[in-house]
Amino acid sequence: MADHQARPGEVALDLDPGAARDAQLCFIGRIRSPWTDRAGCPRNLTRAREAGGGGSVLVDPPFRPGLSGLAPGQAIILLYWMHQARRDLIVQNPAHGDGPRGTFALRSPVRPNPVSLGVVRITALDADAGRIDIDAIDCLDGTPLIDIKPWLPGVDIPPGHAS
Amino acid sequence: MADHQARPGEVALDLDPGAARDAQLCFIGRIRSPWTDRAGCPRNLTRAREAGGGGSVLVDPPFRPGLSGLAPGQAIILLYWMHQARRDLIVQNPAHGDGPRGTFALRSPVRPNPVSLGVVRITALDADAGRIDIDAIDCLDGTPLIDIKPWLPGVDIPPGHAS
Repeated sequence: MADHQARPGEVALDLDPGAARDAQLCFIGRIRSPWTDRAGCPRNLTRAREAGGGGSVLVDPPFRPGLSGLAPGQAIILLYWMHQARRDLIVQNPAHGDGPRGTFALRSPVRPNPVSLGVVRITALDADAGRIDIDAIDCLDGTPLIDIKPWLPGVDIPPGHAS
Repeated sequence: MADHQARPGEVALDLDPGAARDAQLCFIGRIRSPWTDRAGCPRNLTRAREAGGGGSVLVDPPFRPGLSGLAPGQAIILLYWMHQARRDLIVQNPAHGDGPRGTFALRSPVRPNPVSLGVVRITALDADAGRIDIDAIDCLDGTPLIDIKPWLPGVDIPPGHAS
């Protein structure tokens, strides 16, 4: 964390969230993306879709039976572990933002638990091989995968949202 | 896990995902809900909204500065740790479902990493006290909180969704 030059208004925690060990995660696979360095990695899924290139999810063998019931065309939620992100900034001043803001008001990968969430569409699926091709993704190639869930508009769009 | 009576078609892993320790989570607070036992807990947010009663999020003191920038009326994504859920079922046969299906095609709390996701609306906010009141929630009272993110329709509704 020592490599971070704090920007004006940023606040760091006095504790290391990674040392808490309140619960243990198991990586279930990896995300393959076109992005191999942080400078070239799109900041969000909108930018990733604009850049093109798609992506894929590779699920480790023990977890592959869990893919049955998913189908091409379906939208899914991926949860992935931003393993290169620091965890101790609780107020951030994004380079392209409007001044300092709390971490929980931002989608930055920097957060106490660096779990990112992407809603993507399945373009192809080989469940036996543990491979899901997706329309786009906004993380580095090799990012650890934590979970896959079906995206359900009835619960995942909040009531009262004007669409 | 020995208390589980397998239903037809269910498949358990030969490994314990909780023993993997690939990454460590830090609980940042707790969710308060009207649901104190599993039998009475709604199965999803739609059922929770029908039941009424609202809910709230209590954020621990070190993490409260992270709430700045959130506001009443805003929709947020909560990630929470379903600490009572087993982690080793990879194909499940839900009691109210259509037969066995892979864990990643279900929103069941039972999964290798029992992280649930709820899109809810802020009804009131006291950032200094670390308290967010929300319209509804579908987990047991006291469930550990992992993350809060702003819900952003531009990325969290997949392109091509007919609304």
